[in-house]
Amino acid sequence: MKALVYQGPGKKALEDRPLPEITGPGDAIVKIVKTTICGTDLHILKGDVPTCTPGRILGHEGVGVVEKVGTAVAAFRPGDRVLISCISSCGRCDYCRKGMYSHCTTGGWILGNRIDGTQAEYVRIPYADTSLYHIPAGADEEALVMLSDILPTGFECGVLNGKVQPGSTVAIVGAGPIGLAALLTAQFYSPAQIIMIDLDDNRLAVAKRFGATSTINSRDGGVAEKLRQLTGSAGADTAIEAVGVPATFELCEELVAPGGIIANIGVHGTKVDLHLESLWDRNIAITTRLVDTATTPMLLKTVQAGKIDPARLITHRFKLAAIDDAYDTFGHAARTHALKVIIEA
Amino acid sequence: MKALVYQGPGKKALEDRPLPEITGPGDAIVKIVKTTICGTDLHILKGDVPTCTPGRILGHEGVGVVEKVGTAVAAFRPGDRVLISCISSCGRCDYCRKGMYSHCTTGGWILGNRIDGTQAEYVRIPYADTSLYHIPAGADEEALVMLSDILPTGFECGVLNGKVQPGSTVAIVGAGPIGLAALLTAQFYSPAQIIMIDLDDNRLAVAKRFGATSTINSRDGGVAEKLRQLTGSAGADTAIEAVGVPATFELCEELVAPGGIIANIGVHGTKVDLHLESLWDRNIAITTRLVDTATTPMLLKTVQAGKIDPARLITHRFKLAAIDDAYDTFGHAARTHALKVIIEA
Repeated sequence: MKALVYQGPGKKALEDRPLPEITGPGDAIVKIVKTTICGTDLHILKGDVPTCTPGRILGHEGVGVVEKVGTAVAAFRPGDRVLISCISSCGRCDYCRKGMYSHCTTGGWILGNRIDGTQAEYVRIPYADTSLYHIPAGADEEALVMLSDILPTGFECGVLNGKVQPGSTVAIVGAGPIGLAALLTAQFYSPAQIIMIDLDDNRLAVAKRFGATSTINSRDGGVAEKLRQLTGSAGADTAIEAVGVPATFELCEELVAPGGIIANIGVHGTKVDLHLESLWDRNIAITTRLVDTATTPMLLKTVQAGKIDPARLITHRFKLAAIDDAYDTFGHAARTHALKVIIEA
Repeated sequence: MKALVYQGPGKKALEDRPLPEITGPGDAIVKIVKTTICGTDLHILKGDVPTCTPGRILGHEGVGVVEKVGTAVAAFRPGDRVLISCISSCGRCDYCRKGMYSHCTTGGWILGNRIDGTQAEYVRIPYADTSLYHIPAGADEEALVMLSDILPTGFECGVLNGKVQPGSTVAIVGAGPIGLAALLTAQFYSPAQIIMIDLDDNRLAVAKRFGATSTINSRDGGVAEKLRQLTGSAGADTAIEAVGVPATFELCEELVAPGGIIANIGVHGTKVDLHLESLWDRNIAITTRLVDTATTPMLLKTVQAGKIDPARLITHRFKLAAIDDAYDTFGHAARTHALKVIIEA
């Protein structure tokens, strides 16, 4: 089969690989129908993710059709159309039992990282019963690719951790796909204001179309002051960090109101300055989270009920044979205006 | 009357001052029976608290007897024995209405800071109805001085924010009075382990007597490794920071388990390094809080019911005339082994 293989920092290639095999009784082999590229894949290609070694097939998102299953798989059978979670969970360890699937002691984020991933014609999914979801009949499968990672990430790490409430003020720093996923799902809870902050006017315009009540271009600074003017208050009840660099996290420290929450989504490669000298008495919380995908069934229902349309995040489509073009388009989003790109296997 | 007056960095003196007067309809004048000294008073004397200007009577803790009340005071009358909260709350602003009394827009921590405090024979208490508590008949009034600040601080900022649970593992960094208050109140929730960490062997011995299941002297380093050996786990479910310097906060970052909470109590004067490069995917929370004293009525009941004995925190007693000695004793705790000192007015 064709598969996109990581060959070390800065290098990848579409290679011929043998079909994956069932190796454990809980495995399923899934024929990929559609997959996508994540910002994390770009991190891997930069050499930032040491757990992902050369030779690994990339990708941790997708929808497909079950090809075969191991002897212990009870919930799926060949021919079932499935959504693949970016998190593989055994369902049995202490972390899984408290719903913290991201920290499953033998799973977690392993697809396209510690084991071969979804940017291929076929993929082996361990713990299939607790890592795959049935796709409802008639669903827009392309839209559901957004439920593998990006939508639960924005929702769980941003909106749920940030305790977005009816009438509250939400600031989202970073209008990339993850920030936009937080923007879409924040609206489940009817906040009074959602203020999107980014450097890119195109992305801010997208944010307005997606439901942001205001936008601030951070290029010229003074963001905290502009936010206070917009809110007539002491700041944001929820400040969502959706970039992953010190400047944007530290901006959230300025934006958060007394009693508020900084919900970090960003993947950080370096430490940040935490200004406890001004925050120690502000009754705030800071949260971090690797997505658990515990809310995937709930998000599936919101899509089916028309409460949210994740297909709005999709801007480009490619065939697997053209996956290099897809990476090029996704990796130069300022020029291409790409949000999420769909790859058909 | 006699009153201890802040005279600028490093300077204080017991002065003769006029008796305080009722200035607003919600005020009460309270004759102080017993008061105490807080670590925050030492911060003021170092010049660290710019809101406290020279000429201010220090102190924000105490019990006393109501001398007179303003026309709007409904819950108290002359002769009532009262506990004074370190937080004055109007009860009407947006913050008060959500129980965040610490951020009351016209109150908060003002006693011995923005207005004259309790290290005197008399004090004016604004918003008396929502800032004083009736002392139950027969109560140990000296013990209740610990409920003005230190006990609700350890409890709200450490134990409640840290979500201490039955069976959980708690690490407390700093075995001073605040850390010990957290230790005492953490036991309400039956954690499996409470590990106290400090540099001072005497304080660690006190912590053992107060209920710590283990202690670690941090002098020789390797604290995170020692904690892992003690817990057989990935770290502490709750890590309580009760010192207020970068090294102890950053230690908490090493101690916290995936899914755990760092509950900051310490008053910080400088920024700290937040190692998001290792914490972004650990599903943790960091909380800060200026005590709201929202739990004072609850703590009063626990004292009355014998669930906790805050008098154990009291090591020394002085008359108001000897308050300089009291400061000297409290300020050199490593030598004097002082925890909390009681001052009789």
